Amino acid sequence: MSQEKIITIYDIAEKLSLSPSTISRGLQNHAAVNAVTKKKIFDTANEMGYRFNTFARNLRSRKTNTIGVIVPRLNSYFISAMLAGIEKELNGSGYNMLISQSLELQEKEAEYAETMMHNRVDGLIVALAANTTSLDHFQPFFKHHIPLLFADRGIAGNEYTKVVIDNFRAGYEAAFHLAEQGCTRIAHITGNTIRDVYSERRDGYQQALKDKGLSFDESLVFETDLTEISTMKVMNRILKMEVLPDGLFVSNDFCAAIGLKTLKQAGLRIPEDIAIVGFNNDATSRITEPALSTVNYPGQEMGEVVARRLINQLNASNPSEPETLVLKSELIVRSSSLKGGV
Amino acid sequence: MSQEKIITIYDIAEKLSLSPSTISRGLQNHAAVNAVTKKKIFDTANEMGYRFNTFARNLRSRKTNTIGVIVPRLNSYFISAMLAGIEKELNGSGYNMLISQSLELQEKEAEYAETMMHNRVDGLIVALAANTTSLDHFQPFFKHHIPLLFADRGIAGNEYTKVVIDNFRAGYEAAFHLAEQGCTRIAHITGNTIRDVYSERRDGYQQALKDKGLSFDESLVFETDLTEISTMKVMNRILKMEVLPDGLFVSNDFCAAIGLKTLKQAGLRIPEDIAIVGFNNDATSRITEPALSTVNYPGQEMGEVVARRLINQLNASNPSEPETLVLKSELIVRSSSLKGGV
Repeated sequence: MSQEKIITIYDIAEKLSLSPSTISRGLQNHAAVNAVTKKKIFDTANEMGYRFNTFARNLRSRKTNTIGVIVPRLNSYFISAMLAGIEKELNGSGYNMLISQSLELQEKEAEYAETMMHNRVDGLIVALAANTTSLDHFQPFFKHHIPLLFADRGIAGNEYTKVVIDNFRAGYEAAFHLAEQGCTRIAHITGNTIRDVYSERRDGYQQALKDKGLSFDESLVFETDLTEISTMKVMNRILKMEVLPDGLFVSNDFCAAIGLKTLKQAGLRIPEDIAIVGFNNDATSRITEPALSTVNYPGQEMGEVVARRLINQLNASNPSEPETLVLKSELIVRSSSLKGGV
Repeated sequence: MSQEKIITIYDIAEKLSLSPSTISRGLQNHAAVNAVTKKKIFDTANEMGYRFNTFARNLRSRKTNTIGVIVPRLNSYFISAMLAGIEKELNGSGYNMLISQSLELQEKEAEYAETMMHNRVDGLIVALAANTTSLDHFQPFFKHHIPLLFADRGIAGNEYTKVVIDNFRAGYEAAFHLAEQGCTRIAHITGNTIRDVYSERRDGYQQALKDKGLSFDESLVFETDLTEISTMKVMNRILKMEVLPDGLFVSNDFCAAIGLKTLKQAGLRIPEDIAIVGFNNDATSRITEPALSTVNYPGQEMGEVVARRLINQLNASNPSEPETLVLKSELIVRSSSLKGGV
């Protein structure tokens, strides 16, 4: 492709009848160049279309001011809220954001981790793919002390810094609430329980049943990929049961909304026949009729917190200890689960 | 922060008892180094944790393999679908994606354009902010022949390459359909009409009214920021009208869903009293009751097409002519607008 001439400091020097070294110093804001000259240099550089070389400067400083972010998928309400929070904090602090999506696959996640490494990101924020079981592909980051923080979907234990909500408690509260409303046969639809976000919600649900004296029935727990199609399939299975559940806790508002509508179309009343609680407090949850009870899950805040924590770590003179930051989530009770005076 | 020693080619050379220049050539896959030695060099480099310097290599080649993307906001269903499409194509072709959100402000858009320029992106994909009226902030890209493509929200005319849908036609079809269902007083809620996506939909709506012999009533067109709050405000104004509209065309499914629910709660029947058509074919449109008629708006495809077009442009030996690529959108009729035998 035809290229316009690249403007160099020599061109600016010629134009201003100054030495190239003065131009170079001026552009680097060197103390030896006076303010008036500096302004003239900057103005002329801009006029001529000089391309300030952040890229080369970064190379010299071994910093790229770029943060890598690997998420399971971009087109998710929760993820996009989280990215909005990350972007806000990073750009506010002069960092850029390289984004990749693993499409829920460990293999792709590993590939992108390598790309991020070779692009010399200063740090990495990761929400793990559904089937990631090992962190081997992040070893180069650990080895070179490049900060890697997990957002939402991390790995069990205290070895790594992560920003999460208390998923066990959130699941517990959702199921406990349904039991308090008089439900005795509470079904649960969840995602891949390799990921702690889903296994912990399920464990919380199970503990709540126990604490309320309800029996736990394995056949009422459905582990799915949380898509519209798999939710429809689960609804078909539920509707064929001899004894229907009278409560339903779904780990995602969109699937809860699909479930709610399907059950209504089958002639069931919500919440009278089946009370429903979703998860995330998506915009979706305010559109269903009745409005969906849900767990408020602060995606934007989670993004802001993890980005701020990463920036602090990059600015710190000492290595930071791993830390688990737990954000507040809360059950929001709406009409889909309020049976009234039961 | 304490840093592990950075591994250089000299360390690898020492370990393998080879000359540094052999290591350098081997890592660059030079023909002068035989395959067995190359493999040994690569394996040792990996073992020792040598960080392949894509970054420095890119500097030499004047290419960064990085594409900048500036969108109005990240947390939008449509935008995240588009980003998913862009990411898929770019990563599939070895490009990385730097993302910023303008938060619908020209000022922020300009700031991020400058950052992208200084980070030496190979190309830029932009969906303009709501209030952007000038493209001055993109001049450095035009001047240096760095490809800049618009996705969805471009600027009128044929001067720049953009990937869009035919918004005039989509608006026309939506309003024409409502008129065909017997609606005679059709209201329209739209976004900032500085952006052609919204002004063209409105123009199409207006033309359809004309073609169906309906009068155009300025007071039935509501220009908003398409948020939940502004939609509620419009609903309050509509509900106070002496003669209610009997049709409603909303430029966004989420706002259409909010409107639908609000009108139902006020005792109106959908579609009998007011028929509704949304825009985007968001997941939301399948959750409302009745299901929402809408315009299918291919976000993911739009992202894939604009990214592919950009990659082709980067690989082309000649400058590409500006081009407007129009993707197919289509009206999807569901229960919210089907009045039956009217």
